[in-house]
Amino acid sequence: MEIPSVYLERAVTQMAQLPGIGRKTAMRLVLHLLRRERSDVEALADSLRELVANVHYCRICHNICDGDVCSICSSKQRDHAIVCVVESVQDVMAVESTQQYSGVYHVLGGVISPMDGIGPQDLEIQSLVERVQTEPVQEVILALSPTMEGDTTCFYIYRKLADADVKVTTIARGVAQNEQLHYTDEATLGRSIVDRRPFKA
Amino acid sequence: MEIPSVYLERAVTQMAQLPGIGRKTAMRLVLHLLRRERSDVEALADSLRELVANVHYCRICHNICDGDVCSICSSKQRDHAIVCVVESVQDVMAVESTQQYSGVYHVLGGVISPMDGIGPQDLEIQSLVERVQTEPVQEVILALSPTMEGDTTCFYIYRKLADADVKVTTIARGVAQNEQLHYTDEATLGRSIVDRRPFKA
Repeated sequence: MEIPSVYLERAVTQMAQLPGIGRKTAMRLVLHLLRRERSDVEALADSLRELVANVHYCRICHNICDGDVCSICSSKQRDHAIVCVVESVQDVMAVESTQQYSGVYHVLGGVISPMDGIGPQDLEIQSLVERVQTEPVQEVILALSPTMEGDTTCFYIYRKLADADVKVTTIARGVAQNEQLHYTDEATLGRSIVDRRPFKA
Repeated sequence: MEIPSVYLERAVTQMAQLPGIGRKTAMRLVLHLLRRERSDVEALADSLRELVANVHYCRICHNICDGDVCSICSSKQRDHAIVCVVESVQDVMAVESTQQYSGVYHVLGGVISPMDGIGPQDLEIQSLVERVQTEPVQEVILALSPTMEGDTTCFYIYRKLADADVKVTTIARGVAQNEQLHYTDEATLGRSIVDRRPFKA
């Protein structure tokens, strides 16, 4: 596909580098932008520039924030004795939106994945261990995805925290809320039977 | 979903205004950008700014170009007696990529669509009529989408060009190349029988 303008070509090439966006979609997005007000497009461009210029990561939990320490880590309403370990910033937002958790977080920045060349040293695991050793943390909740990589990372962290005087827990696995039992995959259903618990009325 | 940074929030809001991109996808794209090099994100932002600052439309055919007249309209290799009328810049690229057309184009900028409040005066129809009247155009090919709006626009242009000494044609409609006949929709198949043509070996 020959593109009739170098500026169009450049914008399409840049947009097509975003994940899940091919050249055809990029072209559609860019031509949409051309139909918008010029100030709208400039606002988009500026928001991206300002994002990378100003965004910070909390020096305690490594969540995205605007200052040195994030609003959760600096809140007196939160229980700083419980640390929920998550893979990403998105996972912090996911747990927060449940409104079921009042502790603090620790964002690893990924999970151990030898296939992708990601080892423990690429993640915020050492800082978690130091945090548990130096702060009065009582419980570490491992809230990682129930995948091979997530499980490996859980196990690695569990071993690293073996010497620390801290309770290590993981989030419950089982059938999803409102899911039809006969549509649940075997592994999940099997595990939910093994991990059965006393019925509470 | 509470977003922990005003810069992140702003970038997500801006990205979510793109067509087909919701807030969740916007968040995924923006967090992806945060993992990229800062210079990469600035290159994206700059490409959008430069696009809206520098892009022009050809004063003859209204295709996107970098100068006053596009490369197709200024080419001596093209047949300027044949004008292919298309809806959008994307359609010019689509026809060009077939490598079956050596004439020039006229980009309408849309089709007549009363439902969307788009009338003939919002499109480059008057400029097409003037172009046909003042230049030695011999054939106008209507290459619009075979939809209600496209057909309406074809008919409107055909009427407008009735007084001009010009041949008006439309692109062929029928079964698509390599398509299984029994999967072709009734309207297309029916029309392809009505519009049958002598077999050429």
